[in-house]
Amino acid sequence: MAKKNKTALQEKKGVSISEITNTSSIESIKTKRKTNVDANALVSSILNKNITALSRAITLIESKNIKHLKKANTIVNACLPHANKSIRIGITGVPGVGKSTFIETFGKHLTSKGKRVAVLAIDPSSSITKGSILGDKTRMEDLVKDKNAFIRPSASGDSLGGVARKTRETIILCEAAGFDIILIETVGVGQSETTVHSMVDFFLLLKLAGAGDELQGIKRGIIEMADIIAINKADGDNLKQAKLAKVEFNRALHLYPEKPSLWQPKVTICSAIKNEGIDPIWEFIIDYVKTTSKNGYFNIKRSEQNKFWLIQTIETQLKSDFFNTPKIKKELENQLQLIENNKTSPFSAADYLLGLKKR
Amino acid sequence: MAKKNKTALQEKKGVSISEITNTSSIESIKTKRKTNVDANALVSSILNKNITALSRAITLIESKNIKHLKKANTIVNACLPHANKSIRIGITGVPGVGKSTFIETFGKHLTSKGKRVAVLAIDPSSSITKGSILGDKTRMEDLVKDKNAFIRPSASGDSLGGVARKTRETIILCEAAGFDIILIETVGVGQSETTVHSMVDFFLLLKLAGAGDELQGIKRGIIEMADIIAINKADGDNLKQAKLAKVEFNRALHLYPEKPSLWQPKVTICSAIKNEGIDPIWEFIIDYVKTTSKNGYFNIKRSEQNKFWLIQTIETQLKSDFFNTPKIKKELENQLQLIENNKTSPFSAADYLLGLKKR
Repeated sequence: MAKKNKTALQEKKGVSISEITNTSSIESIKTKRKTNVDANALVSSILNKNITALSRAITLIESKNIKHLKKANTIVNACLPHANKSIRIGITGVPGVGKSTFIETFGKHLTSKGKRVAVLAIDPSSSITKGSILGDKTRMEDLVKDKNAFIRPSASGDSLGGVARKTRETIILCEAAGFDIILIETVGVGQSETTVHSMVDFFLLLKLAGAGDELQGIKRGIIEMADIIAINKADGDNLKQAKLAKVEFNRALHLYPEKPSLWQPKVTICSAIKNEGIDPIWEFIIDYVKTTSKNGYFNIKRSEQNKFWLIQTIETQLKSDFFNTPKIKKELENQLQLIENNKTSPFSAADYLLGLKKR
Repeated sequence: MAKKNKTALQEKKGVSISEITNTSSIESIKTKRKTNVDANALVSSILNKNITALSRAITLIESKNIKHLKKANTIVNACLPHANKSIRIGITGVPGVGKSTFIETFGKHLTSKGKRVAVLAIDPSSSITKGSILGDKTRMEDLVKDKNAFIRPSASGDSLGGVARKTRETIILCEAAGFDIILIETVGVGQSETTVHSMVDFFLLLKLAGAGDELQGIKRGIIEMADIIAINKADGDNLKQAKLAKVEFNRALHLYPEKPSLWQPKVTICSAIKNEGIDPIWEFIIDYVKTTSKNGYFNIKRSEQNKFWLIQTIETQLKSDFFNTPKIKKELENQLQLIENNKTSPFSAADYLLGLKKR
């Protein structure tokens, strides 16, 4: 390695620097070529089901470094033609419902059937708690050791939109790496369910039997999204109550309007810890995929999800570009003050701010 | 009137042209001065409670002519310091519930108490049906003749956002013209309730007694918005059922979470056609205004509504500017096709389109 010019500029490039010793122009070309070589190598490895390569690529997706993100884009686009072949399943439920245990049992059940399972998570609180779900992999001891399973703790990010993008791209990479089933975990509170719902084929809601469950924070909208409601911890003294809850939920679900999938949501009971009632859930999912593939909804939904994410990403960026412009930030405060004092209307203020940005 | 130059340019100015015979520069100044004089005259007349002036100003707000809109902006801003003093009441209910009769009876009740009442409407369907609500003023024969009442059929527009803006600005003008109560009617289906809810102080939901009412199209979200539910047509054979419905609704409403206004929504029965149970509704509204003025919510809500409309207007415009750019329109189709064929991800496509606009 001949390092003729030991400049600070070169030092900054870090450990990955190789034989590049020439002018900056040639360097730039070589760097680009190198990026592509690296990216291509990673893609090949991913397609060969190499988990280390998959992990490295996901790390690039999650990076805040603009160079890494460019490389990640190249990789994602190269993986796209090999993606889309899995079943994407969203799993939600309030804390305490037994999500980790369920995912471990359900994941093991799938790998025992010869499936390759990737487990991801969307956790809007992770930027505060540093990963409250999936962060502690020891909660899924058996699944972690399974060579047909891949568990990736939740991507963190400044916004749910950012986290969503990273998760969506991670799904593509996992599919290219040959995973048949993608499980996406989220906490059953707040906005993250809607986000997960907009990137999965099938939505599973875990619940507990017993009164007051409605008040545990599961919103009605989430129940409407569910393709299956699985009442967990249906064992021992809980079994009777779980069976009653199943009847109640079945009755309640029939009052909801028909879903565009034409799928009638199912209610089932299970005990993840005792490995009971797990296979029926999988059978329901197979049935769902068959039904919606036949009536065309499966592909329509994926196509709509893609369109949703395209529009969503653009709109988020437009708003962020506008409201983060320093002069808009400052003048927005002034305009809000003027509105407060009846000196201008919200519409005049909006016109003024929009005009300011264009100038 | 000395018309020295009978050019086509002058002809185009139409009937409102006066003694302007000089160069275009002077014309421009004079036109501007004239606009301001016109606007100022209208504002003075509005403040003097002149209904003809109020109507003319609202017509300017509803115009698609950019010159009219500029004049309208001037008028709205001049009226603002004199606005904000009314009680703004949203009234909704499915077709057939008796909204027109209720508004007529309720309006007459208010004018009999010395109040001045303006009746507006938001009707998202009006662009198709050419005004299905309030359009037929003959349904409110008595109120139309009342000199303390002002009825304005719904503004039409290409978008609910546009209609909303026009209605919001009309409220300001009506308030400046000394109306104490603004009633805003909307149909109890679809998105327009949310729009009305975001511009009123108090939200009244009209219902009918009887099973199956839930299925008439009133969504749960609308019930959650209501500050009062009035079960109309509570007369004759209907009375018993209406009383039962009142008990049921009262029970149901107690299950909803507490409102930020700390106001416990009321359920009441009335018969608009027989003028029964109308005063209690007005008493409830007075009570609401007292309660929320005391706890500060009344002003907080108005302030939040202003902020909402500011942000809403900006976001709508940003999206419209972007997606209506011809090159974006064209390229969006291409990108959607590429996504469909797995040639690009929604996120790469979004990045590409956003970059295209900046170039």
